[in-house]
Amino acid sequence: MGVEKVKVLLFDTFGTVVDWRGSVARTGERLARTKGIEGVDWEAFARAWRAGYRPGMAPVISGERPWTAIDVIHRERLDEILETFGVADKFDESERVDFNLAWHRLDPWPDSIPGLLRLKTKYMISPLSNGSLILLTAMAKRAGIPWDFVFSSDTFKAFKRDPKVYLGAIALLGLEPGEVMMCAAHNDDLEAARSHGMRTAYVNRPYEYGADQVNNFEAESDWDIIADGIDGIADALGV
Amino acid sequence: MGVEKVKVLLFDTFGTVVDWRGSVARTGERLARTKGIEGVDWEAFARAWRAGYRPGMAPVISGERPWTAIDVIHRERLDEILETFGVADKFDESERVDFNLAWHRLDPWPDSIPGLLRLKTKYMISPLSNGSLILLTAMAKRAGIPWDFVFSSDTFKAFKRDPKVYLGAIALLGLEPGEVMMCAAHNDDLEAARSHGMRTAYVNRPYEYGADQVNNFEAESDWDIIADGIDGIADALGV
Repeated sequence: MGVEKVKVLLFDTFGTVVDWRGSVARTGERLARTKGIEGVDWEAFARAWRAGYRPGMAPVISGERPWTAIDVIHRERLDEILETFGVADKFDESERVDFNLAWHRLDPWPDSIPGLLRLKTKYMISPLSNGSLILLTAMAKRAGIPWDFVFSSDTFKAFKRDPKVYLGAIALLGLEPGEVMMCAAHNDDLEAARSHGMRTAYVNRPYEYGADQVNNFEAESDWDIIADGIDGIADALGV
Repeated sequence: MGVEKVKVLLFDTFGTVVDWRGSVARTGERLARTKGIEGVDWEAFARAWRAGYRPGMAPVISGERPWTAIDVIHRERLDEILETFGVADKFDESERVDFNLAWHRLDPWPDSIPGLLRLKTKYMISPLSNGSLILLTAMAKRAGIPWDFVFSSDTFKAFKRDPKVYLGAIALLGLEPGEVMMCAAHNDDLEAARSHGMRTAYVNRPYEYGADQVNNFEAESDWDIIADGIDGIADALGV
């Protein structure tokens, strides 16, 4: 596999380590029960929220918009879709602030923490995520995700797949690119990582988007590791 | 105390969380036994190594020298003092590389991990140290220091007491300065933190330097918390 030199494993987070779709939908369902809201498909709501993610980052990536943390982009999209789903009048400002924190409270996939605990015994593990530092740290503390340190988009003032993120991570570690492995459920994230000399591990998450999933049903290249879960990366690395 | 709003605790590391003097001296003693070196005072060696720390950072802080990670500064000083102590011929290149990693393997003070584990239940905890990311992470993994994330000097490309370090940390967290508390055994570190609006906790470490200690025998101002150990900060914060 050529992975003998790897010292640090960096993880995409949304979709790879945590199930944003199920977690956000469950938050919506809980709020709906509390507020007596009926008739909203909260799975669809979660997917619609996430669908604002790439378009929200695009003007930041292109430089049209100055650096903007993902929490702000999440909040802007929330305001939009509360309208779309016809429930804008049900959420006041403080409730919107709290609902937006659903992204700080995402639940890991069942294999994530067992796999990370195994990997942590041999490797340094960190997210390399478009999340903010406070989001990723709050999420890890709540869910027990045992990161050794936290790389966030605001560390580099850039979102993936901007080369600044990957090159910035390698430089901050003071390592060779081949000593760092990117682990992700998204082929394009690994493509970017490999283009900078990083090692790659693909985690198969064919249910990440549910009904809206249009790609990443399988590994689309000969990644160094291809696994069905994070515990599968640990299997492949023999830890 | 005015510390009710604090969400994140940032820790100076060398001297505050870990005992660099005892740890480096023990490493020297172990190496001396292996190599049959006699007559070196390894406590003095450790203090001499540390004495190169501020002078080594000074040209970086002043801008005369471009950004240089602390590992490089440690290594340059090691080469100097191996000469001073008359043992330069006993350490080849690979042994010097390994000896330099003594700074990645520092032992915590006895109160540090129990205190941090308590504080972690309520607060986000991270170093705010002049150490490098890889140094701080390696140290934490070896010793079981339970950081939630890791701020290092290379995150900000600056050494304390440069304002860039404190202001950079606050900005990356996206918090108000008063929501962040600096915890340190060094009055000047807290003075700098307070000047930027941060909360402050002083940890009394009157034995940090041993025979060379010239200051920081006690709190020199009315810091928000004054404690005899990191567990004392947990006591003061009621966790």
